[in-house]
Amino acid sequence: MNAIGPWDRFGEVQEQVLRGGALLVARDGGGRPNAMTIGWLQVGTIWSRPVAHVLVRPSRYTHGCIERSGAFTVNVPVGTMDEELRVCGTRSGRDLDKFRELGLRTGPATAVEVPLLLDCSVAYECRVVARAELDPTGILDAGIHAKYYPRGDFHTLFFGEIVAAWDLTR
Amino acid sequence: MNAIGPWDRFGEVQEQVLRGGALLVARDGGGRPNAMTIGWLQVGTIWSRPVAHVLVRPSRYTHGCIERSGAFTVNVPVGTMDEELRVCGTRSGRDLDKFRELGLRTGPATAVEVPLLLDCSVAYECRVVARAELDPTGILDAGIHAKYYPRGDFHTLFFGEIVAAWDLTR
Repeated sequence: MNAIGPWDRFGEVQEQVLRGGALLVARDGGGRPNAMTIGWLQVGTIWSRPVAHVLVRPSRYTHGCIERSGAFTVNVPVGTMDEELRVCGTRSGRDLDKFRELGLRTGPATAVEVPLLLDCSVAYECRVVARAELDPTGILDAGIHAKYYPRGDFHTLFFGEIVAAWDLTR
Repeated sequence: MNAIGPWDRFGEVQEQVLRGGALLVARDGGGRPNAMTIGWLQVGTIWSRPVAHVLVRPSRYTHGCIERSGAFTVNVPVGTMDEELRVCGTRSGRDLDKFRELGLRTGPATAVEVPLLLDCSVAYECRVVARAELDPTGILDAGIHAKYYPRGDFHTLFFGEIVAAWDLTR
């Protein structure tokens, strides 16, 4: 795997995130990694650092994992891993060890205690530096409110400093 | 000017934002545009849409402008406009008509009621769809807290759907 800049391959990453998703990995209280499919991701500069922004509902198993471990990896399979994305988008780590079930190949990250998914194309290692909560007053678009928050389960916004980025294909 | 995708020229945009900044434009209550230099910017997919994320302290003149108008443009001068960035980063629109002072050339946006800066290289037209507030409990990195929030003036996070993106050089 080759180190890349945090902005490299951004177009491919965003196309994949929108079209098929990416895998957000964090460790649970027992130290086991869990993977959740995400279809939303922002990156860019905040606090003069490269930062990835992921949104996770408090009801998700991953939410507690990120809060506890303070770190996550974002693993982007460009054009591959459709079955893994489906399972990680529909099953909860509370009920299923998705790594064992799917045989996900992992390797150690270099700067956080959360593994990378070696069959992905691009991966970011992130250390959580900030969080914020969405609330009803913050959703200003009625269509977004109706489509994503009819039950009021607003996302937590997690901001992770990108401490390393990888091209895993080379 | 040529329409581009919301992820095009992302590497150049981020380099410029970090090195010199970009110009965040919004309209005040009298309909006058105001420009503020920003050094932080994220883009990516949220709510299955392309979204730009800008951070503005409530004390800033621009904060009220964005709240009132519900729209902004982000204008990125790649490698140019150092003086404009300096003035727009140090002077407030409360005290100075920065457009008149600097002779900023503007053109109409296509989808929002906020102008574009024609001497920039890349510009995004954004319609505010959500906002969130940072607070002391949300800043988990002590260095960020000490450097950016010693007076507790936490940023508002404004999320603007990118309804058009432009390469202004062609």
